[in-house]
Amino acid sequence: MIKVERLLINYKTLEMFKRFKEYGHQELSMLEDLQNKIVENNSESPFYGIYYGNNLIARMSLYEINKKYDYYFEPQQDYLTLWKLEVLPDYQGRGYGKRLVEFAKEFRLPIKTNPRINSHGFWEKMGFQKAHYEMERDLGENPLIWLPEGVQEKEIIK
Amino acid sequence: MIKVERLLINYKTLEMFKRFKEYGHQELSMLEDLQNKIVENNSESPFYGIYYGNNLIARMSLYEINKKYDYYFEPQQDYLTLWKLEVLPDYQGRGYGKRLVEFAKEFRLPIKTNPRINSHGFWEKMGFQKAHYEMERDLGENPLIWLPEGVQEKEIIK
Repeated sequence: MIKVERLLINYKTLEMFKRFKEYGHQELSMLEDLQNKIVENNSESPFYGIYYGNNLIARMSLYEINKKYDYYFEPQQDYLTLWKLEVLPDYQGRGYGKRLVEFAKEFRLPIKTNPRINSHGFWEKMGFQKAHYEMERDLGENPLIWLPEGVQEKEIIK
Repeated sequence: MIKVERLLINYKTLEMFKRFKEYGHQELSMLEDLQNKIVENNSESPFYGIYYGNNLIARMSLYEINKKYDYYFEPQQDYLTLWKLEVLPDYQGRGYGKRLVEFAKEFRLPIKTNPRINSHGFWEKMGFQKAHYEMERDLGENPLIWLPEGVQEKEIIK
């Protein structure tokens, strides 16, 4: 069983994040906050990851959106948003991405993600479906959702 | 002067959209709406583009966000969100991207965009700056903003 760990914010983690393609403002901001002591060393991050030996080889970010801001699900409820799911190239095709998504599903909350366009086959295999696209809500996103039992996609009235 | 046109939703435009890398749910949804006659042929789209002869060679999407949902600017106000700015590879480096962004600026509203990571040099030249990253608001985004005169970035209280 591949172990998924909640990642702690420290210089070592942030250095390992640089190997991932989707390194961006989020990681830079975490680094600045650490340097300026706005966050403590080893505080929890929204990232979960998989280590292979001492190397972080896969990661994703998860954040729980409050029911109040749920425009995707029926009944309206808290849900998870998942982003920056990525497995380093040398470790792809071995189930690490799948394991991370399964980990997210274990919270038994609906999940929304906005994947890059060429990864739809993977998400479909993971049981995700295209949300009906609504421009005012989704703008440049390609929203995919996963529905646990008893949850439906919110109907859009055009 | 390079002419920027508001793009109309019709089969010809939607076919030309397929040449752009960031073709996604938005375009597919426009196509379905046209096929199902939910939108009329030649209705206005959120896309603006540049033609070279009969070919669409550059495009962007623009949408005005209501003041009520402005979490980026001070004073709080209507702003534009810009996405899918893209110039076809054979036409890059000739000022078409710049022309589209200048067109967006002519509305004299603040602009927010979430560019791909490797395009920051371009946006900097266009006068955009990194918004302070706030996880609950920005999630997987790399927000860049442009401020017209008299507008500031909203201060974030950590």
